[in-house]
Amino acid sequence: MSENNEIKILLTEKEMPTHWYNIQADMPRQMDPPLNPVTGRPVGPDDLKAIFPLSLIGQEVSRERWIEIPEEVREIYRLWRPSPLMRARRLEKALDTPARIFYKYEGVSPAGSHKLNTAVPQAYFNKQEGIKRLTTETGAGQWGVALSQACNFFGLECTVYMVKVSYQQKPYRRSMMEIFGSRVFASPSRETAAGRKILQEDPDSPGSLGIAISEAVEDAAGRNDTNYALGSVLNHVLLHQTVIGLEAREQMAKAGYYPDVVIACCGGGSNFGGLAFPFAHDKITRGTGVRLVAVEPTACPTLTRGRFTYDFGDVAGLTPLLPMYTLGAAFMPPGIHAGGLRYHGDSPLVSRLVQDGIVEARAKNQLETFKSAILFARSEGIVPAPESAHAIAQVVDEALAAREAGEARTILFNLSGHGLLDLPSYDAYLAGQLKDYFLPEEALQKSLAGLPRVGK
Amino acid sequence: MSENNEIKILLTEKEMPTHWYNIQADMPRQMDPPLNPVTGRPVGPDDLKAIFPLSLIGQEVSRERWIEIPEEVREIYRLWRPSPLMRARRLEKALDTPARIFYKYEGVSPAGSHKLNTAVPQAYFNKQEGIKRLTTETGAGQWGVALSQACNFFGLECTVYMVKVSYQQKPYRRSMMEIFGSRVFASPSRETAAGRKILQEDPDSPGSLGIAISEAVEDAAGRNDTNYALGSVLNHVLLHQTVIGLEAREQMAKAGYYPDVVIACCGGGSNFGGLAFPFAHDKITRGTGVRLVAVEPTACPTLTRGRFTYDFGDVAGLTPLLPMYTLGAAFMPPGIHAGGLRYHGDSPLVSRLVQDGIVEARAKNQLETFKSAILFARSEGIVPAPESAHAIAQVVDEALAAREAGEARTILFNLSGHGLLDLPSYDAYLAGQLKDYFLPEEALQKSLAGLPRVGK
Repeated sequence: MSENNEIKILLTEKEMPTHWYNIQADMPRQMDPPLNPVTGRPVGPDDLKAIFPLSLIGQEVSRERWIEIPEEVREIYRLWRPSPLMRARRLEKALDTPARIFYKYEGVSPAGSHKLNTAVPQAYFNKQEGIKRLTTETGAGQWGVALSQACNFFGLECTVYMVKVSYQQKPYRRSMMEIFGSRVFASPSRETAAGRKILQEDPDSPGSLGIAISEAVEDAAGRNDTNYALGSVLNHVLLHQTVIGLEAREQMAKAGYYPDVVIACCGGGSNFGGLAFPFAHDKITRGTGVRLVAVEPTACPTLTRGRFTYDFGDVAGLTPLLPMYTLGAAFMPPGIHAGGLRYHGDSPLVSRLVQDGIVEARAKNQLETFKSAILFARSEGIVPAPESAHAIAQVVDEALAAREAGEARTILFNLSGHGLLDLPSYDAYLAGQLKDYFLPEEALQKSLAGLPRVGK
Repeated sequence: MSENNEIKILLTEKEMPTHWYNIQADMPRQMDPPLNPVTGRPVGPDDLKAIFPLSLIGQEVSRERWIEIPEEVREIYRLWRPSPLMRARRLEKALDTPARIFYKYEGVSPAGSHKLNTAVPQAYFNKQEGIKRLTTETGAGQWGVALSQACNFFGLECTVYMVKVSYQQKPYRRSMMEIFGSRVFASPSRETAAGRKILQEDPDSPGSLGIAISEAVEDAAGRNDTNYALGSVLNHVLLHQTVIGLEAREQMAKAGYYPDVVIACCGGGSNFGGLAFPFAHDKITRGTGVRLVAVEPTACPTLTRGRFTYDFGDVAGLTPLLPMYTLGAAFMPPGIHAGGLRYHGDSPLVSRLVQDGIVEARAKNQLETFKSAILFARSEGIVPAPESAHAIAQVVDEALAAREAGEARTILFNLSGHGLLDLPSYDAYLAGQLKDYFLPEEALQKSLAGLPRVGK
């Protein structure tokens, strides 16, 4: 153990977690409830059951620490789980750092990212309650691919509203969804009232996650046999992702180390929460000094520059109001290639942990993330998703800081997906066509001024 | 063991093979040597050292049964090896077959295919002998990506001549090569005399592996610091790939089964030989009844309809004459999407084993392979490379035959790579734009009439 030279730390299928970890049991302060935007009152199950199954609504508000993973879900998980924990020895050498760098590799899932961890249970629980079709939004397409695969496994239909800029930049992800039988529309689309309204105002709208959510929710709300599935943000989504961190904690123990810092990129918060929450448990309940760092783009700096308040999850105002860091639901992030991080809000759970000082947030600019991604690819072989590259940029900082300090710190990060369907982004980067984005203070204030006036 | 419900049969890094298996030690009849096309005499090391390092030339003719894998190569292998053996339980269910279907999954390599298994040692041995740059050809791009990564790992430059039809159909593979620092030219190119000659005769030539080999060999032969690397066909390439079969044999033993039939697609023969040779060893030396099935496209039916004779490995006639099944070096296969199988010849080792009845050959048409690929993807989640889909089409036949016979046969196949960079092929298939190809007898005879008159 410890100082042998193995690269992959593996678990057997029998060692796969049997339960998800629910951090709501351990939050330092209880969460504020979502609010009905019309009444201003807490949202109850009745408000949600038009688009979600009762089992998921139950998970959304549960304070049980451990929630069992159904055997039918574990059966599918075993196609790729437990995922490997990797020691990035060649990256350590390239950075000439005394730090030990480990990464949990979620790109081994057939969907190519961590998103399948929640897509499978969401499809399963909907199927259990008689639902025939799911609708969803997708940014870069990772979530859309994952839900398409999950629906295929359980025999559900699937309709995906894909943010238009990604639909155009990432045609391969649309292909993947269609291979698994989904219908895919570029959003804003003419399929929904929300989409048509946006197109009327701006026919060239590049779309955004907020707009695509409006379309998917509207589509689902109108039909009894159809529900909506969200790929991030909500409590039950982050719950499902905790298999990542639970496995990683076991694997780190096998490797003989406990991380000094845990890093993941953060858009809606699901891959960050998935890796970090089991370590947050240790930090909250046992006082371990582990640092938990969420990394977002400077182009969409929700946690680092947004406001913690109630806001809509979507652009059209169809969702409940969520207590979270937000840039304002009408915020239109620039078309950076990390499409999965282009979201105006963030997970309420992650937001609260940032507010309470349990989680740190950092923002990274686009060129630095691609530079780090190329360094990683040339060291470790794997081309990272542009989203995951945000985590890598932070890892590079931490590894260099460890060198500066002369300390053999242990760094753990989540390589949430591979970039094999994002290669045009790399072409553009290598051709010098990408640029950095920094949100001007004025534009931020203007967007925040549009926040809804409901709330406490 | 045996009837538990695990899906992945894993080996630890310590269980990775320390030696490659050289089937030349066990061939029923000794191999005929390659011939110098000018003199008609057997080719010696001096003829080859303009483009290959002496260590690889030694492996090409060695009759030692076990050849040690250098530690520096194992160090890189461990980034993804041992690769998993998977039980395709969901595919078994979909086919309603009593057969047990196992597949060795080589798509976990960072290059996405088995090709990295030989790219790494080839780059290593060239580096050892002071070479600064490698040239190569690539069809669909899997080999080009693999050699690009391997050169990157060892600090060598890399120039890739990519068959033009694939260069156009599969831009993402070109991107991958460039991420790892390679220069990539669409072949036929204006970079070489061979390329210019073809373009003069046919400016719209879609290219072929034979043409691209001519370009890469010409480029390497002219410079002292540059060698050439081939991704298949030659003995040392198949030797390196035997890590696949050696691991698979261990893993099958762990699962408690020995295969009744071993299946892999076959273009130049390296992924077939890699999986099958360790089982061929058992068949030749211990008389096991295992069937070994090589699957090729009907569009390029080298083993099933070609002639066993001496032929050039390339179109321009720059290579030695190899004793193999061939359709004639000037044969121009139609632009099927399994670009890695568009080769007029085949591995001399595989060819001899077919001739001697140790290996069976089958040909599959394009639409059947894509249909099988979609079935596999929807069952197991993984989208296969179009090349690997040829193996799957045969697996479906074998599984249905087992059902017909009511026998719980054990089927093992090589999923040599994923199809994530081949998605436009799937788009075309799903849109009904692909067609079958069957080589007319007349065209075959015309091509065979052009075979060189040298040889025995």
